[in-house]
Amino acid sequence: MKSPKHFLLEIDEGVATVRLDRPERKNPLTFESYDELGRWFRGLAHEDHINAVVFASNGGNFSSGGDVHDIIGPLTAMSMKDLLRFTRMTGELVKAMINCGKPIIAAVDGVCVGAGAIIAMASDLRIATPEAKTAFLFTRVGLAGCDMGACAILPRIIGQGRAAELLYTGRAMNAQEGETWGFFNRLVPQEELRANAMELAKRIAAGPNFAHMMTKTMLAQEWSMSIEQAIEAEAQAQAICMKTGDFLRAYEAFVAKEKPVFGGN
Amino acid sequence: MKSPKHFLLEIDEGVATVRLDRPERKNPLTFESYDELGRWFRGLAHEDHINAVVFASNGGNFSSGGDVHDIIGPLTAMSMKDLLRFTRMTGELVKAMINCGKPIIAAVDGVCVGAGAIIAMASDLRIATPEAKTAFLFTRVGLAGCDMGACAILPRIIGQGRAAELLYTGRAMNAQEGETWGFFNRLVPQEELRANAMELAKRIAAGPNFAHMMTKTMLAQEWSMSIEQAIEAEAQAQAICMKTGDFLRAYEAFVAKEKPVFGGN
Amino acid sequence: MKSPKHFLLEIDEGVATVRLDRPERKNPLTFESYDELGRWFRGLAHEDHINAVVFASNGGNFSSGGDVHDIIGPLTAMSMKDLLRFTRMTGELVKAMINCGKPIIAAVDGVCVGAGAIIAMASDLRIATPEAKTAFLFTRVGLAGCDMGACAILPRIIGQGRAAELLYTGRAMNAQEGETWGFFNRLVPQEELRANAMELAKRIAAGPNFAHMMTKTMLAQEWSMSIEQAIEAEAQAQAICMKTGDFLRAYEAFVAKEKPVFGGN
Repeated sequence: MKSPKHFLLEIDEGVATVRLDRPERKNPLTFESYDELGRWFRGLAHEDHINAVVFASNGGNFSSGGDVHDIIGPLTAMSMKDLLRFTRMTGELVKAMINCGKPIIAAVDGVCVGAGAIIAMASDLRIATPEAKTAFLFTRVGLAGCDMGACAILPRIIGQGRAAELLYTGRAMNAQEGETWGFFNRLVPQEELRANAMELAKRIAAGPNFAHMMTKTMLAQEWSMSIEQAIEAEAQAQAICMKTGDFLRAYEAFVAKEKPVFGGN
Repeated sequence: MKSPKHFLLEIDEGVATVRLDRPERKNPLTFESYDELGRWFRGLAHEDHINAVVFASNGGNFSSGGDVHDIIGPLTAMSMKDLLRFTRMTGELVKAMINCGKPIIAAVDGVCVGAGAIIAMASDLRIATPEAKTAFLFTRVGLAGCDMGACAILPRIIGQGRAAELLYTGRAMNAQEGETWGFFNRLVPQEELRANAMELAKRIAAGPNFAHMMTKTMLAQEWSMSIEQAIEAEAQAQAICMKTGDFLRAYEAFVAKEKPVFGGN
Repeated sequence: MKSPKHFLLEIDEGVATVRLDRPERKNPLTFESYDELGRWFRGLAHEDHINAVVFASNGGNFSSGGDVHDIIGPLTAMSMKDLLRFTRMTGELVKAMINCGKPIIAAVDGVCVGAGAIIAMASDLRIATPEAKTAFLFTRVGLAGCDMGACAILPRIIGQGRAAELLYTGRAMNAQEGETWGFFNRLVPQEELRANAMELAKRIAAGPNFAHMMTKTMLAQEWSMSIEQAIEAEAQAQAICMKTGDFLRAYEAFVAKEKPVFGGN
C-alpha cells in the first residue's frame, strides 16, 4: 500500500489510524480525499497486517464533510453524468468501508457533519467525546437526507423515528443523545478519546480476525435477508469458521487453562 | 382539493393540519373517515401548496381507533370479500401517508389507540404530551397485532422486543416510555403541543421540499434493500436533487453569507 | 408429545415451562438437548393445549451455551459435512422457536451466554433479574458473531451499533444495559422472576391465541418485505382473524360490558 496523499495514515500493532488532515478547516472532504479513502478501504480487504481501523479526529474535530467551496460549488455546475459519478464515488467509500473485512471504530470529537457523519455512521463502532456534534445536514444545503446510504443505515442504528428527525431537520445530535440512542457506543473525555479507541481496536485486532471478517461480512450480508435465509447463511458462515486454526487454538487454550493467542486463520 | 366531510382540515403557510372530529368520543375512525383520509393523503402527492402535515389531536385526545359500534360490529357479520376490502382500505391509508411525499408530524395527546396508534406510527415524526397513552390494542378485540403494517413498522421505530410486547399484550405505552424508546421525538406540555408541532412543521416546510420528498421516498424505498442497493439508489436520488434550484440557492446563499430561501424545485 | 429426556418440561394452564437441567454447570447445551429442543419447538406448532412458553432459568442461571468439553472439543475434529450438520441443527432450534406459533418468554437469571444468549434473543419477550449477564461470546472461542441468526436478529432488537459491539468483543451486556437497550422488556428481583414470567405468559395465553399465532407469524414473515408488501400481507392476515370466533366473542363481550373469554379459534 502506498502512503496516502490526502489523509493521514499510521499503523501500529495491526491497527490503522486514519485521519483527515485539514484541522484548521475542521477536516473537510475533497474530491481527492473521497477517492483516495475509497480506494484505500477497498484495498484494505487484502492487507493481512491490518486487522482493525480507527477513523480518528484531528485538532478537536472529526470532519466538516464535503467542502462548500471545493465540492459544493463545482457540483452546482456539473452535468448529470458528472453528478452521478460524484454521488457514486461517495457511495463507493461507504461500500468500501462495509466490505473491507476489518472492524472500523470512529473516534468522534467536535464537528462531525455531512459526509463526516456518514463516515461515523458507516463505521462498525463509535466512541465520542461529550463535545461531539453530529449532523446529517444535507437538507441545509438544499439536498435530501438520502446520502451515501443514510436512509438505510441510520434507522438501523438509532431507530426510524429519530433518524427521520435528523434527516428532515438537519439538526445536530448532541453527544448525550448519541449515546442514549445507540449511535455512540460510549462517551469518553477528550483527552482519553484516542487511547480509548486504540485500546478497543487493539483488543479486537488481537481476536480471531478471520472470524471478525465473517462477522462484518454477515452483518452486511443479512441486512435484507429473511430470518430463515439469515439462519442458513450463518450456519454456513460459522461452519467455515470452525475449520480455522483460531477455533482450535481457543479450544486448546481453554483445556490448558491459558489465554488463547489467535492467528487470524 | 375538496373540503373533507369526515375530518377537519386547515392549511396555514404550507402546513396542512388534519384532525378527526368526534372529540366527545375521543375521535374514533369510521368507514367514511378511513376512506376519505386515504384519498386525501393519496391526492396530497400532487398538491404543491402543501409541504408538511400535522396530524393533530382534538379535545385532548388523538384517536380511539376503529369505532366498536360503527366498525367492529359490522365487521363481525361481513363476508371474507368485504373483510379484505376493509383491511385493504385501512392499509391503503398507511400506504397513502407513506407515499404522499410530505413529512407528517403526529401531535399526540391523550388516547392514541388501535388505528389511532397506527396513524401516529405511520407518521414521520411524533410529538406527544405527558398524557399520551398509546396502545396497539388489537389483541384485546380478539385480533392480531399485524394491522396496517404494525409488525413491519413498529419494530423499526422502537425495536423488535418492545414492539412484540406491545403487540402481544395490547398494553398502553405511556408517554415517557414512548420518548425513551424513540417512538416520540419529544414530549411537550399539553398547552404547547399544537404550537410546537406547527413550529416544527413550518420549519421543515420552509426547507427544500423537493429534497424532503426524496428523503421520504427513500426512507420507504430502501426499507427492504440490501446495503449495496440502498447506496446506489441514494447515489441516483441525490444526483437528482443536485439538479434542483434549491441546491444552487443554498450554495449562493452560503457564498453571500445569507440564509437560503428555498423554492421546492 | 413424549416427555423430553434432555430438558425439563412442565405444563400449567396452557403455559409450557422449559428449563435446561444441569444447574451445577450453569445449564450448558449438548448435542442431545439442541436436537431435542429443536424437535420439541417444531412439534409445538401442532399442540393446541399449549399457548405460550416460558424458557426459564434453573439454579440461578439461564444457560452457559454449548458445552466446551461436550460440544466444542468434538467440533474441532469434525469434517465440514458434520460441522454444517451441527450448525444447521443449532439454527434449526431458532427456526423452530420462531415458527412454533406461540409467544415465548425468556426468564433470564445469571449466566446467559453463547447459545444461551441466542435462545433468549430468539424468544419473543425477555424478562431478567439484575444479576443477568448476557454475552454473545463466540469471538472468545475463535468463532464469528454470526451464530444462529445473531447478525440478523440482535440488531433489530438493540440496534446495529450496540449489536456490533457485543458481537465483535464478546463482552457481557449487564442487566441494566439490557433493559435500557430494549433487549429485556423489564427487570425483576430474582425471587419474583419465575412468578412474573408465568403471570405474563398466562395473561398472553388467556388472549386470542389464533391471533397471537398470526402476530408471531407476521413479525417473522414481514422481516424482509417492503412496506407495501407488509401492508398487503397484514390486510390478508387480519382479514383471516376477523373470521375467528374470538373476534366475535370480544365484540359481544364489549356490547354486554363483560370481559371476553377467548377460545383460540
